Amino acid sequence: MKTGVILISHGSKLSSGNDGLFQVTDMLRAMNQWDIVEAAFLQLAEPGFSEVVKRTVASGANRIVIMPLLLFKGNHVLKDIPEMIEEEKRKYPQVEFFYSSNIGADERIALIAADRIHEVLVEKQHGNRERIEQPQAIVNESFEIIDKLVNLDSAPELHRPIIRRAIHATGDTEYAYNLVFHPLAVETGIRAVKSGKNIITDVNMVKAGITNGPVEKFGGKIICKISDKSVVDKANRLGKTRAIAAMQQSTHEMKDGIIAIGNAPTALFELIDLIKKGLAHPALVIGIPVGFVGAVEAKSALKNITTPYITNTNRKGGSAVAVSIVNAIIKLAKEGQ
Amino acid sequence: MKTGVILISHGSKLSSGNDGLFQVTDMLRAMNQWDIVEAAFLQLAEPGFSEVVKRTVASGANRIVIMPLLLFKGNHVLKDIPEMIEEEKRKYPQVEFFYSSNIGADERIALIAADRIHEVLVEKQHGNRERIEQPQAIVNESFEIIDKLVNLDSAPELHRPIIRRAIHATGDTEYAYNLVFHPLAVETGIRAVKSGKNIITDVNMVKAGITNGPVEKFGGKIICKISDKSVVDKANRLGKTRAIAAMQQSTHEMKDGIIAIGNAPTALFELIDLIKKGLAHPALVIGIPVGFVGAVEAKSALKNITTPYITNTNRKGGSAVAVSIVNAIIKLAKEGQ
Repeated sequence: MKTGVILISHGSKLSSGNDGLFQVTDMLRAMNQWDIVEAAFLQLAEPGFSEVVKRTVASGANRIVIMPLLLFKGNHVLKDIPEMIEEEKRKYPQVEFFYSSNIGADERIALIAADRIHEVLVEKQHGNRERIEQPQAIVNESFEIIDKLVNLDSAPELHRPIIRRAIHATGDTEYAYNLVFHPLAVETGIRAVKSGKNIITDVNMVKAGITNGPVEKFGGKIICKISDKSVVDKANRLGKTRAIAAMQQSTHEMKDGIIAIGNAPTALFELIDLIKKGLAHPALVIGIPVGFVGAVEAKSALKNITTPYITNTNRKGGSAVAVSIVNAIIKLAKEGQ
Repeated sequence: MKTGVILISHGSKLSSGNDGLFQVTDMLRAMNQWDIVEAAFLQLAEPGFSEVVKRTVASGANRIVIMPLLLFKGNHVLKDIPEMIEEEKRKYPQVEFFYSSNIGADERIALIAADRIHEVLVEKQHGNRERIEQPQAIVNESFEIIDKLVNLDSAPELHRPIIRRAIHATGDTEYAYNLVFHPLAVETGIRAVKSGKNIITDVNMVKAGITNGPVEKFGGKIICKISDKSVVDKANRLGKTRAIAAMQQSTHEMKDGIIAIGNAPTALFELIDLIKKGLAHPALVIGIPVGFVGAVEAKSALKNITTPYITNTNRKGGSAVAVSIVNAIIKLAKEGQ
């Protein structure tokens, strides 16, 4: 099986209008996912579609994916390209043709557009920076860069340090747009830290990242039971994740405290069940697990309980994000002493 | 200061061709970054540009960013839209107009295109899944989903479990495309684990995530000195990060072992310096720090030393990625016993 991919786009009379397609084609080649990746134009520029199909078949492709590198679903996507493909199918009956969706209104398009808007509104940084080794200078410079990439003016003041820390921890500006805060979340978290309540984490990685000095000074503890023998035994007995068993065994310690879940969707589901049953009473749930199985569903369920929460809206997240949010809240608690 | 954003795109005679612009406009509105976000069409559809500018000015905008939601830099981007903006400037001299770049050949466009190609080649999953709570079933289902999202056939066999784990740990398919492996990296890592060498981490979060059972059974230790008193003192004395001091203090323990750096670019820079000076001799460096200051530069420097490495190419990464790579290597070592 030899797979060819043909990216097809409008052509332009200007070569600057055609360079982009070749650049994206090179990026797809660099992904090493398909045997052949070629670019073709609908009109006004070379090579044309028919010529590229011919060349791809000659190179031995027995299945060809045509990907319309077009943003929106107009006549080209719905009519012109399908007709052109039908013609090629008749010429090469031995080849299997697939027609993929176009780019479409993907959220990444909105993120690129946001970048372009910010770029033109702020001066872009130029030149080579010196290597910076002083810790506070690194954080300051990072935050300066972040503030040029995203505009947090419309975010409530208490949310901003949390959003900045999450972006800082991941390098990912999407946290400017998709962290979701219960209206009382941050105040509640600060109060919990200041009154010496515990912070319960789903995994040891999250525990290891939290700055425990101030928490202990206020009288709280950072607790993760996932490696406790009783938790491991219970999980094995039930055939469930250790994260589930750890939540069940921590209901006493979490009273009025903060739960930080950065890894296991199952821990978040279990916690929500415990809260609904009246068996767990945390003050704030930071639910930011990552993954393909259950993460989005668990986050969506979290937004339907009455306990204050901080979460995000897609499958991303993770220990580093959970830690960055907890540490930002701890810092706010320390500063507001 | 009131900022308006106008996204401008081709129009289509088909409403399906115009819906996309409105959807992206809604996404930008949801980002809450600008006071006004509007959509306008160049031709064939309403509302037109001039009308939208009028409305935006009437809503009180005193600066307006025009963002061409067009993939490539053809006549519309270079000539038509600039001319239209000049006309509006004459009408509203009190308003500041900015013209941003178009979408362009951004790497995210290539990632979307790759998704579209995979979608048409594999059947998409449908329907609601039941909640899965059995640990191995979750991993299996995740890996099945990952294998539908990316095609790892062209990756060397030893790289595949590592790439899968990194995607699993982050929810981010970009690790299928931008992890970079020194040709001997994985074999070297497996050998180090099996011969009981140590694993040195930059931060405690990375240490906490590594499955230490098998490492200890082989005779190795997982070591992170960042909280050691001597390291903290040295860092304070030098005005450098604790991560730098921790690397300097760990050269003895890292001999022929694995270094996993998931957080601090400064640790990676320091390690590279130590290796170049002949003061450190690790077998494998997993250098995947995250951040806006120095991360990309440190990763690029890593690729220029002779020690085997695993890294990526942009500012993303982090503890979870470093841990997933180390744990995948440990699993390979265990299986190959």
